[in-house]
Amino acid sequence: MTGELMSSTPDIQPSRLEIVRNATPATPPPAKALVFGHTFTDHMLTIPWDAVSGWGTPLIKPYGPLQLEPSATVLHYAQTLFEGMKAYRDEAGNVTLFRPDMNMKRMNNSARRLALPTFDGDALLELIKQLIRLDKHWIPQEPGHSLYVRPTLIGTQKAIGVGPPNEALLFVILSPVGPYYPSGFKPVALYGTTEFVRAAPGGTGAYKLGINYAPGVLPQTSAVALGYSQNLWLHGEDHHLTEVGTMNMFVVFTAEDGSTELVTPPLDGMILPGVTRDSVLTLAREHASGKKRLAGLADKLTVSERGVTMREVKAAAAAGRLVEMFGAGTAVVISPVDRIGYMGEDVHIPTGKDGMGPVSRPIWTELVGRQWGTIPSEWSFPVTE
Amino acid sequence: MTGELMSSTPDIQPSRLEIVRNATPATPPPAKALVFGHTFTDHMLTIPWDAVSGWGTPLIKPYGPLQLEPSATVLHYAQTLFEGMKAYRDEAGNVTLFRPDMNMKRMNNSARRLALPTFDGDALLELIKQLIRLDKHWIPQEPGHSLYVRPTLIGTQKAIGVGPPNEALLFVILSPVGPYYPSGFKPVALYGTTEFVRAAPGGTGAYKLGINYAPGVLPQTSAVALGYSQNLWLHGEDHHLTEVGTMNMFVVFTAEDGSTELVTPPLDGMILPGVTRDSVLTLAREHASGKKRLAGLADKLTVSERGVTMREVKAAAAAGRLVEMFGAGTAVVISPVDRIGYMGEDVHIPTGKDGMGPVSRPIWTELVGRQWGTIPSEWSFPVTE
Repeated sequence: MTGELMSSTPDIQPSRLEIVRNATPATPPPAKALVFGHTFTDHMLTIPWDAVSGWGTPLIKPYGPLQLEPSATVLHYAQTLFEGMKAYRDEAGNVTLFRPDMNMKRMNNSARRLALPTFDGDALLELIKQLIRLDKHWIPQEPGHSLYVRPTLIGTQKAIGVGPPNEALLFVILSPVGPYYPSGFKPVALYGTTEFVRAAPGGTGAYKLGINYAPGVLPQTSAVALGYSQNLWLHGEDHHLTEVGTMNMFVVFTAEDGSTELVTPPLDGMILPGVTRDSVLTLAREHASGKKRLAGLADKLTVSERGVTMREVKAAAAAGRLVEMFGAGTAVVISPVDRIGYMGEDVHIPTGKDGMGPVSRPIWTELVGRQWGTIPSEWSFPVTE
Repeated sequence: MTGELMSSTPDIQPSRLEIVRNATPATPPPAKALVFGHTFTDHMLTIPWDAVSGWGTPLIKPYGPLQLEPSATVLHYAQTLFEGMKAYRDEAGNVTLFRPDMNMKRMNNSARRLALPTFDGDALLELIKQLIRLDKHWIPQEPGHSLYVRPTLIGTQKAIGVGPPNEALLFVILSPVGPYYPSGFKPVALYGTTEFVRAAPGGTGAYKLGINYAPGVLPQTSAVALGYSQNLWLHGEDHHLTEVGTMNMFVVFTAEDGSTELVTPPLDGMILPGVTRDSVLTLAREHASGKKRLAGLADKLTVSERGVTMREVKAAAAAGRLVEMFGAGTAVVISPVDRIGYMGEDVHIPTGKDGMGPVSRPIWTELVGRQWGTIPSEWSFPVTE
């Protein structure tokens, strides 16, 4: 198929939505019983696509199995991409999504990279909102809880040649979730992985594709076997820090002049452009520029997107200039790090009494305030009307 | 789960096989109508696995859709691996598989890399043979045709956390196929891809995983858009030749002393250990050592597994020392190359009148002889008794 053909076929049309309600809705389990990604709500959204007809009828229907041909290309050639975002319910009962426009944009970038069909992100978002409205009673009331939204796009061509699929399926499922790490802000220990890479120049690390996740399981289980919580992806001869498990990564240094520097690797093609990553950077820059100062955050703050090597981290730790380190992602929000196992020794990272550091704490406070709606912002997209 | 737990659960047991015959078998289409991987036989094999019970009951049943939970990890995190092999029917009606022991070994290596369950390769092979026997009338009689066998293993855990799946499904489907390139030995033109990589050090290029295929579609369609048939994966600053599309790659040079050198990149972690690659190397080495001389092949032949750069290929072409170049894989067997688009210019590769070159022709003749059974060898595994 050509780009021309694809663009001349119908896009996603929310007005065509059909809804089949679940006749036997379940009772949402107690919030305490939730394990990340194990519980799903009563309904799901599906939108089929084929190269001739374009995007078909959006359907909200009872959550249940998909029927896939054994030859479907997703099962053989990993033609799958996904997004993760969260819907929050504030104390007044209003439900919002956090920066879903970023996810829609990124999902289309992912689709382009895999030669899967692109779509009108606003149209999909409108349908996702309708799905959430139907199942909003699944959002737990407890603080720190939310509804994890998982849009997924898979190639379903019924033939095992390698090529752009002539059929695809977009589906969205919802999962009520508590804090990702039930232990709260307990800092995690990382194993610095040098045997495997998450991404490479010319590869797909900058896209949210399924293929970036399957190969990470073995390094992750190896890290756990060695007594660490997660793995830290180191890249190149200089062992550049890239990501933490499935999160973006931040390091905080005290600079020579005593000021504070917040550092994350640049979007050089190997780093996922995370929504939480972007939010952390934006809040830190708004503070640094004086646009919106955050209580408790260092007066003199520099925000850098630049490479960081293990040599720099070790030297800063030895010199007492390493302030903190943390992972950032939608599922976890912010995850402090207290130790890196690297080349046979442990590099220790300072953490505060509550597990967080002097930079992550004020940024986290502002960020979750905007997510939960206690701090109004343009990042909150209303779901309920 | 731990390796210990996995090894204490039951392995695949052919004696437990259950067969549900297709009550409405189809009529195999005429061989001329076959398009690679579009037609499947009447039956398929499925074997479920879970972390508690191990491998479950093998079932041969009518070919049909799989039911997968929308949360199944294969759909999100690309937990899929596969194999491709061919069953041939000789003139006497005997059906054989070509070196399936290699595929079983490689499939287990792939499973280990993705933290999916491993299994007894001989047991799976026995079940595959039973499936083929049931559908052997689907193997076309026409020369060059065969039955493509596609074992696939997917993670089916019903939860969207990233980790070793606690459920998996192994399935095998069969597809009658003609020659991969209907145009026969028409040599293909390749576009030298430098913008994307297929694999990288520390990555998964040496394993037959779905994740190695999805990202290749865009480079492939880009190559086609530029007027080439496939893409040639170049790696590193020196533009090392690695693979051709989804095939291993061979280049033939005339050495300074007038002898012939057959070269393919070494198994350095970025190259798929192809069964056809190994077969070509073995036949060439048997010729070179005098163990089995191949008619028409150069007397003085050197077989090298070493790196080849575009600089070397261009220099050899300019000096008249480039003899030929070809791709090798199960689907295609051998695919000659006549041109490489590289950095804005075309490098021309010699080809013989029939499209093949002086090294690929005698090796191909021996190889397909062994595949079709006209040349008896240990590489033929009997399926029918």
